[in-house]
Amino acid sequence: MKPLNIIKVGGAVVEDEASLSDLLRSFAQLPGNKVLVHGGGRAATQVAAEMGIESVMVQGRRVTDANMLRVVTMVYGGLVNKNIVARLQALGVNALGLTGADLGYMLSDRRPVVDVDYGFVGDVKRTDASILAQLIESSVVPVLAPLTHDGKGSLLNTNADTIAAEAAKALAQMFDVTLTFCFEKQGVLLDADDDSSVIARLYRDDFQRLVAEGTISGGMIPKITNAFCAIDSGVKRVVITHARHLEGGTTIVG
Amino acid sequence: MKPLNIIKVGGAVVEDEASLSDLLRSFAQLPGNKVLVHGGGRAATQVAAEMGIESVMVQGRRVTDANMLRVVTMVYGGLVNKNIVARLQALGVNALGLTGADLGYMLSDRRPVVDVDYGFVGDVKRTDASILAQLIESSVVPVLAPLTHDGKGSLLNTNADTIAAEAAKALAQMFDVTLTFCFEKQGVLLDADDDSSVIARLYRDDFQRLVAEGTISGGMIPKITNAFCAIDSGVKRVVITHARHLEGGTTIVG
Repeated sequence: MKPLNIIKVGGAVVEDEASLSDLLRSFAQLPGNKVLVHGGGRAATQVAAEMGIESVMVQGRRVTDANMLRVVTMVYGGLVNKNIVARLQALGVNALGLTGADLGYMLSDRRPVVDVDYGFVGDVKRTDASILAQLIESSVVPVLAPLTHDGKGSLLNTNADTIAAEAAKALAQMFDVTLTFCFEKQGVLLDADDDSSVIARLYRDDFQRLVAEGTISGGMIPKITNAFCAIDSGVKRVVITHARHLEGGTTIVG
Repeated sequence: MKPLNIIKVGGAVVEDEASLSDLLRSFAQLPGNKVLVHGGGRAATQVAAEMGIESVMVQGRRVTDANMLRVVTMVYGGLVNKNIVARLQALGVNALGLTGADLGYMLSDRRPVVDVDYGFVGDVKRTDASILAQLIESSVVPVLAPLTHDGKGSLLNTNADTIAAEAAKALAQMFDVTLTFCFEKQGVLLDADDDSSVIARLYRDDFQRLVAEGTISGGMIPKITNAFCAIDSGVKRVVITHARHLEGGTTIVG
């Protein structure tokens, strides 16, 4: 199978001009088949604030009422996605921005209310890998925004890590997929304050131990849990690294 | 050549839920190859106002400084485009939302400053018809937002009528194109207050006379001028009609 790089870049990187610029340049230089998945949470919070709308987060997830869905549709689907596409085109990358509604490539169900009503948030139900594969085979570089649709006419806000993991799992049937999560740290750190304490290879047992000990905490836990889940679904390699270089970092080992 | 319908729908239609709903239903029922081009000026003005940004118009065109470019990127590329795409998918139409940056299909030059500095506004330089044709041949329905790019990493605000006319002209090499501009009137009217005064067929000579007499004025003039220009470039038929039915109205005759 042909190799495919799926790179996920978070909101903090997207928001900072210097790091976004570095990331896009590194991404453009990456040879072969590739997909970029972006977040944009910070930009959404900022635009919402400019519109007098308060961002409500529960357990690190954005509560998305109708007003906030309007904001994230604008910010993720428009502002962040289209600027990345335009900049990649300038770097010679044949980028195409997509939400899950475009070509209907990713369908989700609105999350049921259990303890929290997250509003217009989607849990991925089905990813049409063949649609993405056809684009990739035609040398198109999909740029995926963290929005899906419910098939009934509504967009849904969907976590960008989840979009990346779901796309990776679906495409693992056709490609030898490396899924890279890049953010503002050098990788998974043994000591959050020491950038040189990167764990080069993280095994499942060690992960569970490090979580129990409190060494790995917060937003890293769902990120790494997603990574193991992707490995279990056939993704060849998951890497967590810094946005600047797209290499090094922590490799998650099934 | 195979027939292709390019339907352009303006901001007033897009903004009103009932008329958008009618339009999308009519569009979904249209058989064969089709493309939808949308505006969104009113939604942009509204979002800008919510962000405390004033919309400045000169000769009916939006002045697009950096702040306003951010707004139109959000509204045209995100809010309007992605909602239309999600709703068309729900109606069984395999829609794909595009700005000119996506797949690099429409390149423009920033408008030079003569009397007015319109800011980040693009005049179309090149439309890659083969990109759109390939999508259309694969039964994809492109949904075009009124944004282009300069090939240097910047998006540019571009009038939706122009996008529709440029796409129609480029695709006229490969398809038998009917370009339909639909809006909130029944067609080109002899009496603006009388919906039954639709001119069924408008010839160039009559157009010039009606403009000179003041019967046709304002925003209709560039719309019809664009239409004649499209006819001169090989577009088979240009129709100006109401958004509700996508038929009847005024046919522009070269």
